[in-house]
Amino acid sequence: MSAQQQPAAPPNPVLIFSTVQGYQRVYALKAAVDLDLFTAIAKGSHTAAEIATACNAAERGVRILCDALVVMGFLTKAGDRYSLTSDTAFFLDSRSPAYLGRAFTFLLHPTQLTHFEQLGAAVRKGGTPDDQGNLAPDDPIWIEFAKGMAPMMVPAAQAIAGMLAAELGSRPRVKILDIAASHGFFGITVAQKLSQAEIYALDWANVLEVAKENAAKHGMAGRYHLMPGSAFDVEYGTGFDAILITNLLHHFEPAANEKMLKKAYAALNPGGQVVILEFVPNDDRVSPPVPAMFSLTMLGSTPQGDAYTLAEYGTMCRNAGFEAPRLVPLEPMPQSLVVARKPF
Amino acid sequence: MSAQQQPAAPPNPVLIFSTVQGYQRVYALKAAVDLDLFTAIAKGSHTAAEIATACNAAERGVRILCDALVVMGFLTKAGDRYSLTSDTAFFLDSRSPAYLGRAFTFLLHPTQLTHFEQLGAAVRKGGTPDDQGNLAPDDPIWIEFAKGMAPMMVPAAQAIAGMLAAELGSRPRVKILDIAASHGFFGITVAQKLSQAEIYALDWANVLEVAKENAAKHGMAGRYHLMPGSAFDVEYGTGFDAILITNLLHHFEPAANEKMLKKAYAALNPGGQVVILEFVPNDDRVSPPVPAMFSLTMLGSTPQGDAYTLAEYGTMCRNAGFEAPRLVPLEPMPQSLVVARKPF
Repeated sequence: MSAQQQPAAPPNPVLIFSTVQGYQRVYALKAAVDLDLFTAIAKGSHTAAEIATACNAAERGVRILCDALVVMGFLTKAGDRYSLTSDTAFFLDSRSPAYLGRAFTFLLHPTQLTHFEQLGAAVRKGGTPDDQGNLAPDDPIWIEFAKGMAPMMVPAAQAIAGMLAAELGSRPRVKILDIAASHGFFGITVAQKLSQAEIYALDWANVLEVAKENAAKHGMAGRYHLMPGSAFDVEYGTGFDAILITNLLHHFEPAANEKMLKKAYAALNPGGQVVILEFVPNDDRVSPPVPAMFSLTMLGSTPQGDAYTLAEYGTMCRNAGFEAPRLVPLEPMPQSLVVARKPF
Repeated sequence: MSAQQQPAAPPNPVLIFSTVQGYQRVYALKAAVDLDLFTAIAKGSHTAAEIATACNAAERGVRILCDALVVMGFLTKAGDRYSLTSDTAFFLDSRSPAYLGRAFTFLLHPTQLTHFEQLGAAVRKGGTPDDQGNLAPDDPIWIEFAKGMAPMMVPAAQAIAGMLAAELGSRPRVKILDIAASHGFFGITVAQKLSQAEIYALDWANVLEVAKENAAKHGMAGRYHLMPGSAFDVEYGTGFDAILITNLLHHFEPAANEKMLKKAYAALNPGGQVVILEFVPNDDRVSPPVPAMFSLTMLGSTPQGDAYTLAEYGTMCRNAGFEAPRLVPLEPMPQSLVVARKPF
């Protein structure tokens, strides 16, 4: 049978149906987190009846939810016993230091959902139909980000700290600017590795309260300096050895990012580096899946934000005076570092 | 290196992040349908600029949306040109007879979303916290189902009609009861294959208006009889050669289903068959994915509904007097037929 004669596969609507039903997966995971179901399993409840008792829920409801969580990849099932996967145990046991359950408050904030219910309008306009999306000064959603998203940033924070420690460890003084400091853990992790480092944390004043508290908890208060305000407006000062710009540039158009990068360039010592944490899709813009989809997240929630490719960051960095940046993958994390040096 | 010494994979939060962000995929597909973007591509627009013009939208918004739709599997991309997959062309071109875009009104009805926002409460209670979920008499959501979901039911309707035509084609008279007739296309498709068949359609009175209109459009009005009301309360009569129960039994507990099956048994001629269209998971209840996940859909939206296994349907059918049922898969569709005969 030649290729032309092979019958086409019968039409299959399952991808359409499953995609639309995807909201049920969102709320299944949220319900499990709200019930602290993963912690109950971690503590030794394994059958639906045992988990139901531990979670004060109906056995029937727990059985159906747990079966769905198996389909979704968060649990395994052997006979009638449910167990955690290693990732679920690491991130969704509420006793874990890496617990991600609090991130749901940010990720499923009513503002985020509302932006996406209006996605058609955003496509028509080319950006959020809201005036500024999430970018208004002191938008309280960034408090939720700071409180919930830190565990997802640990591998990136450790990678940044390791990189800077290798380069700057022998210097008597190190001065780091942490732009969009949020929870503060990028700068704090650097300060833990570099005992001589002074950290200057920039973010909205309300968000910096979270960073300040975390810095104090980790004994960094004396080396942790607050710079409240917009990254476009605050004076950075000078003499920095490295400037971190994490989870920020995706919110803005390239011209705005170049403006910020020029400020960073001016604030860095010669040979200093800007370290950008971002979702960086390939040049095709449709791979890998998570960085590529992040562009849509920005379309829905910002006027002109995007997930930029390395080539696009290269243009922005070079236009600001930097050398061509290098990409540092953080796999399996979906984000990467884009690191560019100010020439000596 | 022995198995014990192999390092564990680093913790990976991508499944958690992607699942929670899944609401963005829901609304991306909805936005594309609302903009009639797939039809624009089908008509010959392929670049973001061309599609934007056709859809009266911003090129930037269309570019980002189309890239997301590539990641999601609904489009392909070559250079800067987007094309439809064969399934997208079949189901999402609004000129296609199989167009599924209208199903989104049912699948994303505010009532459905609200049920899932309350899923934690449903797990605690073991069923929807609403009194009757979607099961109140004349609930208008079933009008939306009838108006939008018919294209997804075409393969099942054709399978049912083919099966009944093979068995009943030589008989001078054929009498079919179509319970939960909805859009009517199960009975209508049978009537198209069996010109001697009289169809008795049972559903809520408001829903039967949709079925009646579809029957008239297909020239079946003279052989199409309406039986408005609840399948639990309406008298079925007798002398039926086959009884269809489509997309209905999953809404109820087994005892209620046995009651309905006993009524069907009494209404069938000896040798007659009940033909049940359902999501039927395997005995493990966690495969295949779509039928297994359907149990959660019922937990969220009904007091006691579920996706039952073939073994469970076997028990219900035998308790109602039927022979052991057989499973008829309808792959690639996610549903199956469960067919049980009344003994001669």
